[in-house]
Amino acid sequence: MSVETRLTDHVTTSADDTDRYAAALRRAETVAAELRATAAERDRANRTPRAEVELLRGHDLLQVQEPVEYGGDGLTYAQASQITRVIARGDTSIAHLIGYHYAQTRIAPLFGTPEQADAQSRRNAGEKLFWGGVQNPRGGSDLVLTRDGDGFRLNGRRSFASGASLGDQLSVTAVFEGELVFVSLPAGRDGFRALGDWDNIGQRLTDSGGVEFDNARVERSEILGDDPLTGRTLTPYQTLVTPHWQLAFVNFYIGTAEGALDEALDWTRLHAAPWETSGVDSATDDAYVLQTVGELRSEIRAAALLADRAGDALQHALDVGPSLTADERAEAAVAIYEAKYLTTKVSLAAASRLFEIQGARATTSAYGFDRHWRNLRTHTVHDPVAYKAREVGDWTLNRRAPEFSLYR
Amino acid sequence: MSVETRLTDHVTTSADDTDRYAAALRRAETVAAELRATAAERDRANRTPRAEVELLRGHDLLQVQEPVEYGGDGLTYAQASQITRVIARGDTSIAHLIGYHYAQTRIAPLFGTPEQADAQSRRNAGEKLFWGGVQNPRGGSDLVLTRDGDGFRLNGRRSFASGASLGDQLSVTAVFEGELVFVSLPAGRDGFRALGDWDNIGQRLTDSGGVEFDNARVERSEILGDDPLTGRTLTPYQTLVTPHWQLAFVNFYIGTAEGALDEALDWTRLHAAPWETSGVDSATDDAYVLQTVGELRSEIRAAALLADRAGDALQHALDVGPSLTADERAEAAVAIYEAKYLTTKVSLAAASRLFEIQGARATTSAYGFDRHWRNLRTHTVHDPVAYKAREVGDWTLNRRAPEFSLYR
Amino acid sequence: MSVETRLTDHVTTSADDTDRYAAALRRAETVAAELRATAAERDRANRTPRAEVELLRGHDLLQVQEPVEYGGDGLTYAQASQITRVIARGDTSIAHLIGYHYAQTRIAPLFGTPEQADAQSRRNAGEKLFWGGVQNPRGGSDLVLTRDGDGFRLNGRRSFASGASLGDQLSVTAVFEGELVFVSLPAGRDGFRALGDWDNIGQRLTDSGGVEFDNARVERSEILGDDPLTGRTLTPYQTLVTPHWQLAFVNFYIGTAEGALDEALDWTRLHAAPWETSGVDSATDDAYVLQTVGELRSEIRAAALLADRAGDALQHALDVGPSLTADERAEAAVAIYEAKYLTTKVSLAAASRLFEIQGARATTSAYGFDRHWRNLRTHTVHDPVAYKAREVGDWTLNRRAPEFSLYR
Amino acid sequence: MSVETRLTDHVTTSADDTDRYAAALRRAETVAAELRATAAERDRANRTPRAEVELLRGHDLLQVQEPVEYGGDGLTYAQASQITRVIARGDTSIAHLIGYHYAQTRIAPLFGTPEQADAQSRRNAGEKLFWGGVQNPRGGSDLVLTRDGDGFRLNGRRSFASGASLGDQLSVTAVFEGELVFVSLPAGRDGFRALGDWDNIGQRLTDSGGVEFDNARVERSEILGDDPLTGRTLTPYQTLVTPHWQLAFVNFYIGTAEGALDEALDWTRLHAAPWETSGVDSATDDAYVLQTVGELRSEIRAAALLADRAGDALQHALDVGPSLTADERAEAAVAIYEAKYLTTKVSLAAASRLFEIQGARATTSAYGFDRHWRNLRTHTVHDPVAYKAREVGDWTLNRRAPEFSLYR
Repeated sequence: MSVETRLTDHVTTSADDTDRYAAALRRAETVAAELRATAAERDRANRTPRAEVELLRGHDLLQVQEPVEYGGDGLTYAQASQITRVIARGDTSIAHLIGYHYAQTRIAPLFGTPEQADAQSRRNAGEKLFWGGVQNPRGGSDLVLTRDGDGFRLNGRRSFASGASLGDQLSVTAVFEGELVFVSLPAGRDGFRALGDWDNIGQRLTDSGGVEFDNARVERSEILGDDPLTGRTLTPYQTLVTPHWQLAFVNFYIGTAEGALDEALDWTRLHAAPWETSGVDSATDDAYVLQTVGELRSEIRAAALLADRAGDALQHALDVGPSLTADERAEAAVAIYEAKYLTTKVSLAAASRLFEIQGARATTSAYGFDRHWRNLRTHTVHDPVAYKAREVGDWTLNRRAPEFSLYR
Repeated sequence: MSVETRLTDHVTTSADDTDRYAAALRRAETVAAELRATAAERDRANRTPRAEVELLRGHDLLQVQEPVEYGGDGLTYAQASQITRVIARGDTSIAHLIGYHYAQTRIAPLFGTPEQADAQSRRNAGEKLFWGGVQNPRGGSDLVLTRDGDGFRLNGRRSFASGASLGDQLSVTAVFEGELVFVSLPAGRDGFRALGDWDNIGQRLTDSGGVEFDNARVERSEILGDDPLTGRTLTPYQTLVTPHWQLAFVNFYIGTAEGALDEALDWTRLHAAPWETSGVDSATDDAYVLQTVGELRSEIRAAALLADRAGDALQHALDVGPSLTADERAEAAVAIYEAKYLTTKVSLAAASRLFEIQGARATTSAYGFDRHWRNLRTHTVHDPVAYKAREVGDWTLNRRAPEFSLYR
Repeated sequence: MSVETRLTDHVTTSADDTDRYAAALRRAETVAAELRATAAERDRANRTPRAEVELLRGHDLLQVQEPVEYGGDGLTYAQASQITRVIARGDTSIAHLIGYHYAQTRIAPLFGTPEQADAQSRRNAGEKLFWGGVQNPRGGSDLVLTRDGDGFRLNGRRSFASGASLGDQLSVTAVFEGELVFVSLPAGRDGFRALGDWDNIGQRLTDSGGVEFDNARVERSEILGDDPLTGRTLTPYQTLVTPHWQLAFVNFYIGTAEGALDEALDWTRLHAAPWETSGVDSATDDAYVLQTVGELRSEIRAAALLADRAGDALQHALDVGPSLTADERAEAAVAIYEAKYLTTKVSLAAASRLFEIQGARATTSAYGFDRHWRNLRTHTVHDPVAYKAREVGDWTLNRRAPEFSLYR
Repeated sequence: MSVETRLTDHVTTSADDTDRYAAALRRAETVAAELRATAAERDRANRTPRAEVELLRGHDLLQVQEPVEYGGDGLTYAQASQITRVIARGDTSIAHLIGYHYAQTRIAPLFGTPEQADAQSRRNAGEKLFWGGVQNPRGGSDLVLTRDGDGFRLNGRRSFASGASLGDQLSVTAVFEGELVFVSLPAGRDGFRALGDWDNIGQRLTDSGGVEFDNARVERSEILGDDPLTGRTLTPYQTLVTPHWQLAFVNFYIGTAEGALDEALDWTRLHAAPWETSGVDSATDDAYVLQTVGELRSEIRAAALLADRAGDALQHALDVGPSLTADERAEAAVAIYEAKYLTTKVSLAAASRLFEIQGARATTSAYGFDRHWRNLRTHTVHDPVAYKAREVGDWTLNRRAPEFSLYR
């Protein structure tokens, strides 16, 4: 039993908290089971995941992080990440949506005034808001915010904006006078348009197409934080925003591997045929099949434990609060990047090797077992994992912290 | 000195032979380029590859192994396998079709009387016949041949029969009085039905669905070999039938990896964006991208050389002819199984890692870059590669030869 | 934060317990630091590790599992395993000795009468006994116990008996009337002889040579358990004996990797030279060095977490006590075998790849950095790890528990 | 058709040439067998490999590249590299010595005047000279050549100089007026001193310690090339000097793997014990053992073919001669660096995994099976292989040639 990794004792403060967490996990499992049953079919159909968001909402999974008194479950971000993982066991796309959603709702607490954060939290819980995000700066495009009278105007486009066409509320990053600002907008703002152009080999149900803002009005109150809007220095605490997303990734990668393994084992028990020279009557007795199952089981478990540790590390940093030092921020970020590296490697390998357990007939399209590799392959190049390994190495060898960006 | 030309040194007896081989390779390259341009789109459309077979026929690629005097190019099987590899650089499904076709046309020389083989060869060349195969015994189904007057009747079904609905001629294995016989049937025989049920995650254009024979008439002359039909002992030379198929696999795996690498590099030069912390202005200067390209280039090249050696080994055994000993058969088979193990491993890894060179935007469905992994993953579980490694080990350690079956 | 892995809450029952555990870990760290300073030199000298055992004894590390009232620290077996891991960061051989020692002292509680166990425990603590083991059945040799008047005689030899020449007390397995019995013998028994024939490429300081018993007298009281000696059925709880050893292995593998990484990083900071085309002034800024450090850091951390979980699982089973079911035993054993597979893989790879961080000059013999790979390679073939993966797979896929033996 | 014979098709111009090559390979096999029998013992003894060099000389292996008319065998460099590989099957250190020797004797043809080259060649053959090298610029030290009357003086030190204490002749690189010059010195020059400080974990018998020159006299004729000594531009042909060394590395890496595999299989047939749960009576029937053998056999074979291709590529460039273009030089160099990457990876993995075939008893020191990993690990960090992969990638993706240095 390791001393260093027992970081989570601080999060359970009462039996009620524990019960609420357990209940939320159970709801997530229900949703995951329902999603899995139709995942292959929905992946092929490639429709906007409207029903899926309603499923999450209907099972009260959107507001789990909000205070109990507002109608939430008071879960920590680490706990919410475990829900993301559970959903990924059923459908990686939908886990992506809820994982991003959980991260977007943490932006107001990090960057907003206490009043903004509190108001948002009430609305999140009361209206069970689903959040989309317009943040990803990749794709050579950007959003610019300019003053317009007592308000502002937003112009520009983004190439990848998960959940933006579906979101009740949008979390937007924009450039104002050369500096980054965080904006929170309700859906349906005039001048906003989702391009509906997401058609990728994986994560097909993530509604991750491009968006445009054409002179969309933004109120001052929708921009997070106090005046002035410029000249702010982000605190280490605020730069935890990026590890939030990265922890979501970690969890939907490993949850996918867990779900894919379960699914493959179920299928193998029912359908797999023994090989002609295996000397056994059932594929489930095959020496190589058993070895492969054992290896994948071990690898996936270890990566999941590293993901747990990553969640604990971020939660610990969040619990420290605004006084967080740069080194403490680095510790949390690097814990997540370690898990990012390993869950990427392990889950991709598992998604491919599972076919070696199942055999040829598992390649029938109707099962859709290839979606795991496609989903993982698509998202694991979101940002290059070699740089995550490098950032871990730089901290380990040189105590040089990852410089903040929306990827680090 | 190019490896591909070196490959055939021992079989080329004249400058004309060399020229004909070079010309056939050039035709294959033309076809591969044409196929690549539309491969992603055709993969999605999932239609029976009728036009693709006509493309092969139109470029005189079907009859390359037949004698020059009959209208072929007199290529060896090893040379034909290189054509399969070239086609795979453009489209793995079509390489599968032509690779199987080349193998099917070798069955008459192995099992037929000299007259049967010669007659078939004339027709193959003269009519540019495309062969389908009804051989794969997987799937718990089988075909039974019974006597009926002066002829025979064929009944039963097979689950996987590549090219069977398209073939001008079908190569069929059946059981007659408990023993394996090889039958050669023209298309359109009454009682034959292709089920059209192939819809898999990869090798989508291989027309590999099931077939049924319902009391189909078979003439004695369509059954390969002399009387009696039973009590035959297969010679080591005849059991080379299986290595023929396995060599085709090896070549379309490695050709796929070669094509996928080329395609990814082309795309990277045109489209890839540098990473924000890479410190370079172009993705093509990124330290990790360059390393990955170098590793894959080396791995793919080495696996291709092992595949060349496998082709040489089978060709050497074929050149020995009917006096081939069991040990000589084993040498050839094991050379192919070494290559089967390695090309499986290397090509699968390459098809997945290429995305790490290209980055996130390469996951757009329109490019269809995932088809390489799907194609390889689908076919590389045709028979479990762990057993191929085992057979290589058994020969290496114990000089125990792979026992003949339609997989070994 | 994962629900399933929080198994250890039950072990901390008071602040005093925690303090004693922390103090023992600190003593282990002191010993590890001292061992590391001379590890390369002692590895070359290859002497019987007499001084090393005295170092362990002098720092009160031998009796940590014994009750506080007898002079121990009352640590659980899971906690003792963490001490093994800490020692391995300094010297894998000595971690092997203490890891086996901790396991040997658990045999009396598992197989002895309560009186035997209690008496042994008092002596372990009071006399700070060091235990050797004569158990390993590999090597085609065996020990036979026969009746001789009111006592017994022991005859035979064993090929591998770690610590047997140094032990104050020996834990011996023997065959009596065809059944396995556990014997506890004080050192110096007439007829016992250590062969001093251990000279292996790694784990050189483990005193693991062969032993002989030539008609050595054994008293009834030295045989663990009640009468009769035969016809006993081992309970699932008793068969936890094997997972004890396997958990020790897991911990000295991963501790070795942790220590080797630390050592390599220290050396790199001081001595490594930048590569001529790296474009950086220090090896610690090299893109590939940083990536490798990051990958190894992540892999080692994850494997260590899996080892933590394995310790928790065994401790949980021990805490259940004699009513443990066969399935509960399997859960604990399989958790350890998962970790056995992964720590084997990760630690071996790390011990080899670390040289790629350090570069050519790290191969100087004086540093002795090769000892990590030699130590790990030697012990990781103690029993074939492929079978551990297989056992994990068999439990995962089929709920078939590992059959008990001294390896499972 | 054997790969090894095929290798040389383009260079052999007569049956005599082929016979001489075959005879040289047979002599090398004899030497390798003799070396293998004592390799473990000599590795431990760590003496200067004087007797080993005499063994090479006694079997006429030193002068194989020199013209037949001078007493050599007229082998190409690619053929000589195959001899290096054969020697590595018996002893990697001695293969290192002969591989470097073969490269050193090619420096006069590359950099000297025709007269210098010819004179050297006569002496190499007539006196069966063994060459040492003082080239490796690693280690922060250097050699400076200055004018002194009608001659020159050499001062400075080098950290690694393989064979320098044993060489009859030394190949030295030095800096003269800021530029690189190549010097050829007979042994025993006043002012030269071998430090005898080589004691590394592997390649122990390579005599690779440091050397010092203290005002050693150098004659103009000992400096290769025409006047003036400065202002020369190296031609692409001359920069082939580095690929010569790198090809030697490639060959002693893969030869080591081949020898280690053979040795492990022999041992396994004789000594390995079946695992208790393997269900077979002999370790040679174990499913996992057979799979591992098969995998290693395939990987090693493919890497050897890539090494063959690398030799062909360099030989092709040498055959082009002084008109070689920069791109042709790059093709040859990159072919070797591909093989460098892969032989490094494959041989290291094999040297470690072989123990999994053999089992625990193979770790006995007397066998010395760990020397393969130690030898490979030591030399494979000579220059970082990640940069070789990068250079391959840069050429593949960007057609950017490796810039010349003594490592590229």
